Amino acid sequence: MKILKASWLICVDENSTIIKDGAILFDEKIKDFGEIESLKAKYKDLEVEDLGVNTVLMPGLINSHIHLEFSSNSTSLSYGNFMSWLNSVIINREALIEKSSTTLINTKLNEMLKGGTTTIGAISSYGFEIEACTKTPINTVLFSEVIGSKADMIDTLFTDFKARLESAKKSASKSFIPAIAIHSPYSVHPFLVRESLRLAKEENLNVSAHFLESIEEFDWLHKDEGKFLEFFKNFLGQEKSATKPMEFLQQFSGIKNLSFTHCVEASDNDLEKIKELGAVINHCPTSNRVLNNKRLEIEKLKDITYAIGTDGLSSNNSLQMFDELRNALMIHTNLNINELSVDLIKAATLNGAKALGLNKGRIKQGCDADIIVCKLPDEVKNEEELCTQIILHTKEVQNVYINGEKHV
Amino acid sequence: MKILKASWLICVDENSTIIKDGAILFDEKIKDFGEIESLKAKYKDLEVEDLGVNTVLMPGLINSHIHLEFSSNSTSLSYGNFMSWLNSVIINREALIEKSSTTLINTKLNEMLKGGTTTIGAISSYGFEIEACTKTPINTVLFSEVIGSKADMIDTLFTDFKARLESAKKSASKSFIPAIAIHSPYSVHPFLVRESLRLAKEENLNVSAHFLESIEEFDWLHKDEGKFLEFFKNFLGQEKSATKPMEFLQQFSGIKNLSFTHCVEASDNDLEKIKELGAVINHCPTSNRVLNNKRLEIEKLKDITYAIGTDGLSSNNSLQMFDELRNALMIHTNLNINELSVDLIKAATLNGAKALGLNKGRIKQGCDADIIVCKLPDEVKNEEELCTQIILHTKEVQNVYINGEKHV
Repeated sequence: MKILKASWLICVDENSTIIKDGAILFDEKIKDFGEIESLKAKYKDLEVEDLGVNTVLMPGLINSHIHLEFSSNSTSLSYGNFMSWLNSVIINREALIEKSSTTLINTKLNEMLKGGTTTIGAISSYGFEIEACTKTPINTVLFSEVIGSKADMIDTLFTDFKARLESAKKSASKSFIPAIAIHSPYSVHPFLVRESLRLAKEENLNVSAHFLESIEEFDWLHKDEGKFLEFFKNFLGQEKSATKPMEFLQQFSGIKNLSFTHCVEASDNDLEKIKELGAVINHCPTSNRVLNNKRLEIEKLKDITYAIGTDGLSSNNSLQMFDELRNALMIHTNLNINELSVDLIKAATLNGAKALGLNKGRIKQGCDADIIVCKLPDEVKNEEELCTQIILHTKEVQNVYINGEKHV
Repeated sequence: MKILKASWLICVDENSTIIKDGAILFDEKIKDFGEIESLKAKYKDLEVEDLGVNTVLMPGLINSHIHLEFSSNSTSLSYGNFMSWLNSVIINREALIEKSSTTLINTKLNEMLKGGTTTIGAISSYGFEIEACTKTPINTVLFSEVIGSKADMIDTLFTDFKARLESAKKSASKSFIPAIAIHSPYSVHPFLVRESLRLAKEENLNVSAHFLESIEEFDWLHKDEGKFLEFFKNFLGQEKSATKPMEFLQQFSGIKNLSFTHCVEASDNDLEKIKELGAVINHCPTSNRVLNNKRLEIEKLKDITYAIGTDGLSSNNSLQMFDELRNALMIHTNLNINELSVDLIKAATLNGAKALGLNKGRIKQGCDADIIVCKLPDEVKNEEELCTQIILHTKEVQNVYINGEKHV
């Protein structure tokens, strides 16, 4: 065990504690932390590694919502409109998936690691990213996803889903945690929602679902109209949505670690229900932006926790969390940049851990020692501006520790 | 002379013309352009250089507002509030300027060149960036800036300003054009405004001024109150602003190439006047964001032309125009991304040329051959999404031609 010392330590706790000349003592878990002088006094025999000037110790970044399976997309999918995008996904899916090899996914995971991401919540439609995810040092919560609304396909779909979940479970470890994703209220048959949630409760698995990402989804679910009507008529011969948003949400009670992704069109009632369920909202600012969906009004969420996800390269130009945080600073241009930066760092660490049900995302005794070291280009004088400067300037991090082990 | 051929040619004209398999024939000036097959037929003896798959030919980027003199700043200046920032500029100015050596400015200019910037409008308070600007291939309009509101300092300030302008004029060339900047309505004595504008008219020089960047400036100019009152009292013993915004604007009539920077707090009347003056607004989205100033509502500008500037590293983390355009896409999150991207490309080329009074910024017979080649990571199927994909994916460009000469 040794003590790491940096110019700043961002604890990420209820009081947004930042410690100047801060230090952490850890093995697999965080053992102690505080000002370097007090730690030195307490642990006289331990070596101190000084990380250098203008360095910051903070929890590793948690990307709470990502689709690795679309990592080969750059310009194939259509941006600017949700429906055009969805159609382009359907048309290009097979070609993209074929190109998203284990090698490509490995490359992306390595880049993410160097960028400070230590945990991901990966939505898995096919399961072919499992190999890369079990080998990377990045902790993965792998959400095997159930999707499909055609009644006569239910049995096949559920069997396929269970097989993928079983396959993920075979690789389960401390750093690879199988979980369940219900694709969305518009795309999953009520039977599949019910049965997969039953499974989640029985096996105490984390659950995540996309929810009200676009105005098209809103119009379809609430009014059985809009561009989704056309889509469902053509593809599935369906003219009415199977589930109303509130009915969908109600089925999730009893799930312990629960998150809903996007929610940009959620009503006040929906948000109230999400709060009651104790669920976290996965906020994917860039993805919403490039598809021309609404900005999530995080200022109206009040006591609903939001985490940050990059979504997949299907709707982003980067899987790097610091790119995502910079975009979030720009997108939420109406909010005070220094206060927002503090919030975003918390969203990208502690709140992500809450979304994924992990003992991570903060510097606290007993938490997993997932720690990153950022190197600022120069001195920061005011603590209030520290998070802003970190977000503005960090592309790659100096060091990455996961469960106490150094990987970068 | 040879013909360059790319997958796409973005002309940047009134109709936002994009030509698939487009080509340009040029020496110092653009001689012809169009579809490759028609150019080949017209110029049978000329060699065609095919730039390769997924390439884009377009006008070089014009950064219409930049302060190179603060290139050494990264974390020294205070972000999040205009007044705190201004105070931090005053406190740190000398130290920052000392560190912004010709070598550093050269490095930044080289990076900008690789990023596709072929022209800058540089605001110069001291004149020490002139050496670097005359040596870079990037075209520079160098705005020697007049600043100061203290009555008993007027003569000294004006003499100093004229000396700096004269020094810039000694280096004048086709690619280094001296011009005049009036710092702002709050910081320049009416005598200095009048006299420097008289000079500009006599010598037919371009003019630029900061205008209504912050709510603090608005409150001071309109109501003689707010945080600027405190500032002016303490620093200059002044309790009333010397110029109202409209009075300030009125003095600029008769200036041919005129631009105002920021304008985020400009009233409808101010904007009407700016339109009447034929002035361009230099929009610096990131700078406004990091100082917590308002977003410029570009959707309300209608027929006022806006150009794009990075401002200095005093209020940005990058001088790269593609970074700025990406941020603009995020900041104007309420606007359709594909339409905005087309607008932004025009703002960053043709509109910049208008702000700086140059015969550049578009692919048209007789225009200066400032041309860049972007390389997309993959195929783009729909023309409407081309500009979005270019902005999202371009960090460095494949080639840069300035006045027909290849520099990257």
